Amino acid sequence: MHKRIKDLSQWLKQKGYTFAFINSIPNIFYLTGFYCDPHERLLGLLVFPGDDPVLVCPGLEVSRARGDGWQGEIIEYSDLQDPWELTSDLIKFKVNDQNIAAVEKEFLPVSRSEALMKILPGLQFAPVEEKLIEMRNIKGLDEITVMREAGKLADRAMAAAVSVLSEGVTEAEVAAFLEYEMRKAGVPRMAFSTIVLFGARSAISHGVPSAVQLKPGDLVLIDMGVVYGGYCSDITRTFAYKQISPEFREIYEITHLAQMEAIKACQPGNPISAVDKGARDVIVAAGYGENTGMRVGHGIGIEIHEYPSVSGANNDLLQEGMYFTVEPGIYFDGRGGVRIEDDILITVNGYESLTAYPKELQIIG
Amino acid sequence: MHKRIKDLSQWLKQKGYTFAFINSIPNIFYLTGFYCDPHERLLGLLVFPGDDPVLVCPGLEVSRARGDGWQGEIIEYSDLQDPWELTSDLIKFKVNDQNIAAVEKEFLPVSRSEALMKILPGLQFAPVEEKLIEMRNIKGLDEITVMREAGKLADRAMAAAVSVLSEGVTEAEVAAFLEYEMRKAGVPRMAFSTIVLFGARSAISHGVPSAVQLKPGDLVLIDMGVVYGGYCSDITRTFAYKQISPEFREIYEITHLAQMEAIKACQPGNPISAVDKGARDVIVAAGYGENTGMRVGHGIGIEIHEYPSVSGANNDLLQEGMYFTVEPGIYFDGRGGVRIEDDILITVNGYESLTAYPKELQIIG
Repeated sequence: MHKRIKDLSQWLKQKGYTFAFINSIPNIFYLTGFYCDPHERLLGLLVFPGDDPVLVCPGLEVSRARGDGWQGEIIEYSDLQDPWELTSDLIKFKVNDQNIAAVEKEFLPVSRSEALMKILPGLQFAPVEEKLIEMRNIKGLDEITVMREAGKLADRAMAAAVSVLSEGVTEAEVAAFLEYEMRKAGVPRMAFSTIVLFGARSAISHGVPSAVQLKPGDLVLIDMGVVYGGYCSDITRTFAYKQISPEFREIYEITHLAQMEAIKACQPGNPISAVDKGARDVIVAAGYGENTGMRVGHGIGIEIHEYPSVSGANNDLLQEGMYFTVEPGIYFDGRGGVRIEDDILITVNGYESLTAYPKELQIIG
Repeated sequence: MHKRIKDLSQWLKQKGYTFAFINSIPNIFYLTGFYCDPHERLLGLLVFPGDDPVLVCPGLEVSRARGDGWQGEIIEYSDLQDPWELTSDLIKFKVNDQNIAAVEKEFLPVSRSEALMKILPGLQFAPVEEKLIEMRNIKGLDEITVMREAGKLADRAMAAAVSVLSEGVTEAEVAAFLEYEMRKAGVPRMAFSTIVLFGARSAISHGVPSAVQLKPGDLVLIDMGVVYGGYCSDITRTFAYKQISPEFREIYEITHLAQMEAIKACQPGNPISAVDKGARDVIVAAGYGENTGMRVGHGIGIEIHEYPSVSGANNDLLQEGMYFTVEPGIYFDGRGGVRIEDDILITVNGYESLTAYPKELQIIG
């Protein structure tokens, strides 16, 4: 049995839970190594306190599940069969005194919780996230190896984007080119919708690359990441094209300083809030407290947003193996914004930045 | 109020439901025009039987919601606020005798259903899908206009892929190139993970493009689609490179005939099962009944898989405005497969194929 499933199984035993039912794409990948978007079909992993796990899998995904390394039992079903019916006896057999299923409360849809309750009347639900967040929060060596690669690929994509910045190029063309380079490098998909924004548009929080053309004096904000080996990277750099106003040069330097101060706080044992504070103190002192975001970063890993949230409200302590973005920014609606973002891994005695594209102000062209 | 929200609101009134809570990306887009992936944050649309709708929206997405045309009320929240707390009074005020919320049972996570039940103790849930599937099932003129464009873009992408088929090119390179062309054409994202498979790999149902190189005698299966204006296209073609064996030439012709027979059954008033039967009868008669899929197609639209399922078990009748794929295939594990897929719109007196790339066997190079 996969070590992670064994951990989960032991947790179930300790809690006295009847079984765990996992059905989100990232958690199935984390526990089995099988990455699959089953669309509307049910793909579910049943983990038991004392027994071998079972994967409930659409027939046409079975060979991929085996190819991705799943060696356990599979309940296979076709589009003309009801997977719950096929699973019902197995689940009924496991019923115990507590009758509590650990499920992904943040993901399990009501229809599936009802299907489970139909099989086991009176079934109650406990959040399996409690255990899975704790497990996924601390990255292991195997994960760090691919995360490093994902970070390097993001650096390469940034360099590719910079290489095509020239007058008249559109935001969409720059995004297309960097994604093309990543695809050729073997990246299966981007970690999220690539952001390339010129000029005043650089202040938009989640902007979509458009047909707007690059012109001298524009800021260029590029925020993107790749998925490699199932893990995400996420980097942002802001450039100036041909020239930069004294005001935005200062904004850039403040943002850069804020990011470095936040990263300095990335030490095991520090509260997570200290990272946010590191950046925020610099930005507030410069008078831009109203022009920055609500939190300085977010955990990343299999998902582009996962635990921990790097906010002033999170007083959990940093631990070796935590992995998150540090991305302070200063934004002026209608005029432009600057953001600098890296992916930081907490190490035994400090941190390692898994993205490394240069951060000094670059005036392109 | 948007006409679709008005329809939903009237349905709520007729059913006596208290309110509807919608929080899936596609349904929010369908009802509001606002396409947004809020990641772990809550983005929810509250629709009432007799009152104006309210969008619960993360603060940093509000300007995009407005930009995408949402003119109704917004309850905005920051990452440091609890959106349920801010929404609680509004919902409590709406309570009626039935105390039933229409929710997306196939999507609403347990945690959110519990949050709603905490606000309204004893709240019950009814599937809002009942109404939304019915609405989304019949495409309107505005939707058909962008669907046609999405289909044309898929044709262009197929032509782009064919243009780079040469000895030694890898599956991943072909996928990268066609996606690059689409990105440059303004496509924000592909409809699903592009499939390019060479040789024996063409039999894999949901294969991922790899570093395998093209060689003479290979089959080339390309299955992909784009998102344009929020709507998906989905096309598959199978080619031969340099040469084809007599056996696979025959398989190709059977698949082609099966697809044409299935499409012939695409007439309003016919049962949906007749489309599946049209293809299956040809394939079974040729002796390949064991080598084909469980259903001949799936509905498409805002999602790549939506209603209707084009299977032998679906006896609903075809109606003008329905839109789905017709994609018979014949597969031999370890040797290769052929699939031909188009996107079919049911019209007032027949059908229109929104993908139109040629289907006669092409031997490339």
